Amino acid sequence: MRKTDFSGNTCPIARTLGEVGDWWSLLILRDAFAGLRRFGEFQESLGCAKNILSARLSKLVEHDLLRRVPGSDGSAYQEYELTDKGRDLRLVLVALRQFGENHLFGDGEEWFSLVDVRDGEPVAPLEMRASDGRLLRADDVEVRTVRRNSTS
Amino acid sequence: MRKTDFSGNTCPIARTLGEVGDWWSLLILRDAFAGLRRFGEFQESLGCAKNILSARLSKLVEHDLLRRVPGSDGSAYQEYELTDKGRDLRLVLVALRQFGENHLFGDGEEWFSLVDVRDGEPVAPLEMRASDGRLLRADDVEVRTVRRNSTS
Repeated sequence: MRKTDFSGNTCPIARTLGEVGDWWSLLILRDAFAGLRRFGEFQESLGCAKNILSARLSKLVEHDLLRRVPGSDGSAYQEYELTDKGRDLRLVLVALRQFGENHLFGDGEEWFSLVDVRDGEPVAPLEMRASDGRLLRADDVEVRTVRRNSTS
Repeated sequence: MRKTDFSGNTCPIARTLGEVGDWWSLLILRDAFAGLRRFGEFQESLGCAKNILSARLSKLVEHDLLRRVPGSDGSAYQEYELTDKGRDLRLVLVALRQFGENHLFGDGEEWFSLVDVRDGEPVAPLEMRASDGRLLRADDVEVRTVRRNSTS
């Protein structure tokens, strides 16, 4: 299913995606988080075919992850912006990014890292914690069936 | 690129994948985290074509996310187990899972949730925090170029 080799990409998210499947949609969302809004901007960033980008953008809008809005400068160009639902994918991107940073870059290689604007320090590694704050390891968790109900 | 409609799947990870791309590889890893080891077990769980599963498994082994090992019961059946690198994808799966749980299930629907074995409570929502522990919001972070060096 992979259409592109991301193994040399500067973005650790893209490198991770290159190892686990076809992820144009998440790369579009990554760019939306970075402030890109126009078709041409996404195409320039991703370097993918117009028909592929167009199909992915439409799917993201269909799933309410992006919404189409009028050009912010009043031009005829339609723009795309993240919905609240789309913004909630931020942690997926952070997790993908941190995996790539930890495993897919060698000494001396540069990449785009997500940092705290206050001090320029990289975002801390995500942690799996219990409801009471305990750090959880793989052996501390298991999968169980749960049910959403109106009171939850 | 989507080959399957995951929108009705019980697994919130699968539902998220269904919205953002083709993710057979991550579903295989999800099953490996759940303890599946044999080709037939993965095929039964995923319900995907043998050639697709075979190609995905080979790619995961190639990328050192899974390794092939002799059958644990001494049988002729080859098994697959997560590598340390593969285990580091756990947080990606947790992030995908939590997005699905938050956005892709309706009242009364059941799903497989990741819970703390000690108290059965779901794993706490992942959080984006600064190196000093401060909770970070979208506006608190930005992407900057960094370089891996031998001292890091």
